[in-house]
Amino acid sequence: MIVGVSLYADDLEPGRRFDFGRYTVSEAEIVDYARRWDPIFIHVDPEAAARAGLGGVIASGLHTLAIYQRFAVETIWSQAAGGVGRTMDIGFRRPVRPGTTLTGHATVHDVTPRPARGDAVVTIHGELVDGEAVVLTVVNESVLPLRAAAGDVS
Amino acid sequence: MIVGVSLYADDLEPGRRFDFGRYTVSEAEIVDYARRWDPIFIHVDPEAAARAGLGGVIASGLHTLAIYQRFAVETIWSQAAGGVGRTMDIGFRRPVRPGTTLTGHATVHDVTPRPARGDAVVTIHGELVDGEAVVLTVVNESVLPLRAAAGDVS
Repeated sequence: MIVGVSLYADDLEPGRRFDFGRYTVSEAEIVDYARRWDPIFIHVDPEAAARAGLGGVIASGLHTLAIYQRFAVETIWSQAAGGVGRTMDIGFRRPVRPGTTLTGHATVHDVTPRPARGDAVVTIHGELVDGEAVVLTVVNESVLPLRAAAGDVS
Repeated sequence: MIVGVSLYADDLEPGRRFDFGRYTVSEAEIVDYARRWDPIFIHVDPEAAARAGLGGVIASGLHTLAIYQRFAVETIWSQAAGGVGRTMDIGFRRPVRPGTTLTGHATVHDVTPRPARGDAVVTIHGELVDGEAVVLTVVNESVLPLRAAAGDVS
């Protein structure tokens, strides 16, 4: 077993913060995502969205959430020793327009060990921002293994 | 103005139910979605996922949510006269495996008119199911225009 590489619930003390990189969203990507999963005109039709006073398409909230998740995988979940998402409470706070550069962070809010199950419920609060403006908030509850239960004594 | 085509907040009385179609999720689609947005091995690597005791890849929860949203657009939002999502509270209840056929429904739970703003806050409760088993729950709060505010007297 490779030890010392993976992140267990034990490693996620409340207050630990993960800072995301930066990602610029293009109009083509906004339209592509929404055509497949959220084909409403405000996401897929630049001219109709402009006529509706939006100045062009805005990203599907699910697309914005997908960008959040990719950041979370890069910074947290790709290191995790396992685990599974249980809930996500999402706030869509501001529209995301083509050319916007997003970044953000996620902070461990609570860890509730369940020794009998060998795991812990981990609550993480995250957000995506465009400059100073919060565009998306996420409260995510996941279940992660405890180190002892995995027999990992590193 | 075309009248009688669009769905306003006034049309969404509590209890109104929208039934979804059916959609079968392939392994290729599970892997494609997750490679782009949620690249954890349990979603993108069938062999590693099998070694972890999952019997192969399981769909990203965000992918499952995207399938929910496409059903919701087909049955509700493509008819709506406008509006914007405000929050989504998601429960990931069961894994979705390749070959699973999903369906589901969404029911209007609450409509709170805000006449001064010309809109209403609409809360919809939805779920995706695999046979009898619920795999995803969604509580979605959106803001939709009121008919009177749009000058639509149909």
